[in-house]
Amino acid sequence: MIGSGDGEGVARAREMYERDPTNQALSIALLELGQGRATVRMRVLDSMLNGHRTAHGGYLFLLADAAFAVACNTYGPVTVAQGAQVTFLRPVEAGEELTAEAVERARFGRGGIYDVTVRRAGGEVVAEFRGQSVMVSSSPEQRGPAK
Amino acid sequence: MIGSGDGEGVARAREMYERDPTNQALSIALLELGQGRATVRMRVLDSMLNGHRTAHGGYLFLLADAAFAVACNTYGPVTVAQGAQVTFLRPVEAGEELTAEAVERARFGRGGIYDVTVRRAGGEVVAEFRGQSVMVSSSPEQRGPAK
Amino acid sequence: MIGSGDGEGVARAREMYERDPTNQALSIALLELGQGRATVRMRVLDSMLNGHRTAHGGYLFLLADAAFAVACNTYGPVTVAQGAQVTFLRPVEAGEELTAEAVERARFGRGGIYDVTVRRAGGEVVAEFRGQSVMVSSSPEQRGPAK
Amino acid sequence: MIGSGDGEGVARAREMYERDPTNQALSIALLELGQGRATVRMRVLDSMLNGHRTAHGGYLFLLADAAFAVACNTYGPVTVAQGAQVTFLRPVEAGEELTAEAVERARFGRGGIYDVTVRRAGGEVVAEFRGQSVMVSSSPEQRGPAK
Repeated sequence: MIGSGDGEGVARAREMYERDPTNQALSIALLELGQGRATVRMRVLDSMLNGHRTAHGGYLFLLADAAFAVACNTYGPVTVAQGAQVTFLRPVEAGEELTAEAVERARFGRGGIYDVTVRRAGGEVVAEFRGQSVMVSSSPEQRGPAK
Repeated sequence: MIGSGDGEGVARAREMYERDPTNQALSIALLELGQGRATVRMRVLDSMLNGHRTAHGGYLFLLADAAFAVACNTYGPVTVAQGAQVTFLRPVEAGEELTAEAVERARFGRGGIYDVTVRRAGGEVVAEFRGQSVMVSSSPEQRGPAK
Repeated sequence: MIGSGDGEGVARAREMYERDPTNQALSIALLELGQGRATVRMRVLDSMLNGHRTAHGGYLFLLADAAFAVACNTYGPVTVAQGAQVTFLRPVEAGEELTAEAVERARFGRGGIYDVTVRRAGGEVVAEFRGQSVMVSSSPEQRGPAK
Repeated sequence: MIGSGDGEGVARAREMYERDPTNQALSIALLELGQGRATVRMRVLDSMLNGHRTAHGGYLFLLADAAFAVACNTYGPVTVAQGAQVTFLRPVEAGEELTAEAVERARFGRGGIYDVTVRRAGGEVVAEFRGQSVMVSSSPEQRGPAK
């Protein structure tokens, strides 16, 4: 009802992922994509550590945010993040491969809530993220300056 | 009372900032540093954009987190982030220079709360961040695996 | 530009405070009110404790939210809360008198961010709250079913 | 390993619910209880409205917090809330009966994360809440001043 069928919205989200310079620069891979959900993967490089020599919280957030951005754009309308909350559960080391799985929790009006879980290899959770999104166009064509 | 004088804690925070690989890789400059506060600066590179061609929210968060990390380590004990919340106010373009100013809001037991404001040149606010920290050592010497 | 002068918006916020059944039922007093800010006070009753016999976190949040609601409605347009985050710093006992001071941190488009500090007598901080608001009418007259 | 079997922790959580003065005063009913989860129900009274004549956000938070408090105390050790985030999705009217369902999302060290969904009759979601908990005793016997 919001301007494009499921398949079209998902295809647009994939295009958005592909043209995203951050995804390219950090080699963030898109593992899964569906209506309201997305899973991405990134390896923690030495350049992503903090002063404690563990993975910088900023990169854990960024990875979760990357999954969230794709997931919330699978309905067609251009959608941006309004805000997010993150909890850091366990430290991560250089060289680890992390996945972030975003799942839609709720939609209401132009708003949405997405939960993203960041896991290390083996499945242990290292961070939990929740993001709030808002649609900024009523149709995919109406692409003004996002947000 | 927590193991080191003000000056010593601030000096340790500066060392932590300097040895932080993320700060080096992203050319995050430390502009100001004092007990419970820090200001950093970063330029948004083309590689930091998202699929909407505006600055990736992950990098706005990361910059705020970098300021927070320095500010909360100015008391001596090794201190890490437990969690944080961010609100994105306005989109940011490639090439913009952003500053993030972290100010301590409260301390209690081993916990702390820091507010970080991210501004573009000219002072307009583009993101507001709040972080919760926890001390993981009672003295700077006791440096186990952080967090 | 949003439909009413400062004085008028503040007057409307005061009316909103006065007709608020929760403020009446819990004897929440309005101590101060100005453009973008408000301070309220409430006594913690025995009926407001939790299973640990300290003040229920829900009431600490509610008091902060009450201050936030008044403060964000001082500009004229009907404004509601979209979300909020709270950190509980210290336990509170029955009989304590708490104040919550809400201060505007930022405004952008139809959005706003307000920080609320909850203190016990003597000034010790017991909770820190941040709320995000959104205007739901462009003028005070346009009062539909407020969210 | 934390001092009591599943059944014992759940029984203690039920006792905590029963002796909670807020649950009694607001007639908050416990509908379901299990390891890491709890569902509660409350009717919105006229005295719980705000100045917009809809349910006060403080009471929506309080109900979610009540479910969270029971759920996070089902493991035996005394556990308190450190913080929480809430998003308000839809307005609620006086007389509505709300349920809040708390589900554990993660546990780590002494910490926990719980997601609580608040629904109206018929199942529509009106608020989403996430809480962070921390154990303040390693065994149920060690009950000092909570938090």
